Amino acid sequence: MARILVGVDLGGTNVRVGAVTPAGELLDWKISPIEAANGPQAGVAKIAGMIEALLGSLPPAELAGIGIGSTGPIDRGRGAIQNPYTLPSWVDVDIASPLSARFAAPVILENDADAAAFGEAWAGAGRGMRRMAMVTVGTGIGTALILDGKIYRGMDGIHPEGGHMLIDPAGPECYCGAHGCWESLVAGPGIARLASAGAAKEGGAMLEMADGDPARVDARILVRAARQKDPTAVRAAEQVAFYLGLGLANIILLTLPDGIVLGGGVMAEYDLFAPGVRAVLDRHNSMVPASRVQILTAQLAGKSGVLGAARAALSELEEHN
Amino acid sequence: MARILVGVDLGGTNVRVGAVTPAGELLDWKISPIEAANGPQAGVAKIAGMIEALLGSLPPAELAGIGIGSTGPIDRGRGAIQNPYTLPSWVDVDIASPLSARFAAPVILENDADAAAFGEAWAGAGRGMRRMAMVTVGTGIGTALILDGKIYRGMDGIHPEGGHMLIDPAGPECYCGAHGCWESLVAGPGIARLASAGAAKEGGAMLEMADGDPARVDARILVRAARQKDPTAVRAAEQVAFYLGLGLANIILLTLPDGIVLGGGVMAEYDLFAPGVRAVLDRHNSMVPASRVQILTAQLAGKSGVLGAARAALSELEEHN
Repeated sequence: MARILVGVDLGGTNVRVGAVTPAGELLDWKISPIEAANGPQAGVAKIAGMIEALLGSLPPAELAGIGIGSTGPIDRGRGAIQNPYTLPSWVDVDIASPLSARFAAPVILENDADAAAFGEAWAGAGRGMRRMAMVTVGTGIGTALILDGKIYRGMDGIHPEGGHMLIDPAGPECYCGAHGCWESLVAGPGIARLASAGAAKEGGAMLEMADGDPARVDARILVRAARQKDPTAVRAAEQVAFYLGLGLANIILLTLPDGIVLGGGVMAEYDLFAPGVRAVLDRHNSMVPASRVQILTAQLAGKSGVLGAARAALSELEEHN
Repeated sequence: MARILVGVDLGGTNVRVGAVTPAGELLDWKISPIEAANGPQAGVAKIAGMIEALLGSLPPAELAGIGIGSTGPIDRGRGAIQNPYTLPSWVDVDIASPLSARFAAPVILENDADAAAFGEAWAGAGRGMRRMAMVTVGTGIGTALILDGKIYRGMDGIHPEGGHMLIDPAGPECYCGAHGCWESLVAGPGIARLASAGAAKEGGAMLEMADGDPARVDARILVRAARQKDPTAVRAAEQVAFYLGLGLANIILLTLPDGIVLGGGVMAEYDLFAPGVRAVLDRHNSMVPASRVQILTAQLAGKSGVLGAARAALSELEEHN
């Protein structure tokens, strides 16, 4: 019987479940709202149901393992989700044990940024790179590093949080307690704040698109208006590109990867920011070949997390056999 | 016959040569000015003479390999030194071939920051750490990462230059072309500029120690005056600690090592800056356990480069046997 892996991508809004072959082929997948407010028990039951339905729809196969990439913080060793900001009421939820018992397969839990990066390295934009960094820009910024086909882990196996590296000591206060973190400047809310301030001061297309309310100007509106060459939006987009570039430059100066894969909603519009980012990297090119580092957008779209979680389960099996 | 390794630490001012056992014991070492202005041929001849004298003074042993840690940029693959700022006239100097021919032993070349870090990880402050970062603060700032007993290398084996990561977009222009690099803020010249500006504006003990000439205020004077509680010097030292802490925080947020070892002349005075650094790390402690990362000063003083270069030669032999 063919072996199969299940990958689960658990976010604050949706959960995705996919069946993946050991060769990295995604056979089928499902998506559903996680409805975090219903509590963790309902959430885990929903995930179990999705896995069951998915496996039932496929030819019989041996389930070799289940990998879960979850919004953090998580406790990898115990397979527990620890009260993420985006999953309210999920306080220290052991997700590995019930799924392992139900499906009689090993279950491993990973940080979602690591899982997405692992997916892109395995079957997406990062294929063939010995050192791949991934930066996921959404509500926050997640960073991950895949070295020689393995997830890089920090002290005690803890996932580093490059999204909170400092970019501008004069920058806005971040919820983490520091000032001018990368995430506070160019994740969704930071971009919205920047665009909103520009629209409030100068008006223009962004303010019109937000029905005259600057507080409603967000990253989406910024992108739309900048593509229409609205000068205020173009300037705001340049600012975003500048800060995005500075963070990428810091990753490059410290780790000099072969490539950086950009994921998350905002990065689907990366072409708008690319010239500004390139200008920053060219300016940091004298000490290390920053301009030679490939900057690519994620190829697997919503599926990098599912594939990477499955890959993580496979790695775990390989290490123990 | 016992096996022995030779480690060479080649800087812009001095060259150190040491004989090291495969167990990490430094048997003996010598130091001499490199006199870079005399050109590379004289320099390589001097190093060869030092190795010969050193080996001649020790009981007969089999020379298993020679490792050289050199101020960069270098071409590791070709064993060539490529015109470092600190070794004028050393343009693409093949140092490996002549030494290898003369001593009938393999010669490997490493970046000096990597060699120093390897030494501290092997026989100094970083012993037992799975992930060790080292930051060497002198005329510039060098960074290195030792992962699982190996030097971390970037794209094409190139040494990353974390000293040039951005810390403050409003900071001074760096010779690398960017603004507000870590090195431009807290390496020797950056510290001197900061202290000098304070002394010019406010006078005090630093100005007295510099015989009334603010341009002569340097890091040494800053440290001396701050230890005497001169308020201007204390404020400047706090600023240095702040920027030093921000760079360490970025290393931690991106790579979360078990510890960071601080080397170089300025860091011999680290206790003066430690409270300010700790305050910054505590502020960046909510996303990753930054406060748990050990911050240690180098233990091998002037010998980390020699030991690490020998260790690098040993690694090379191990990989090929």
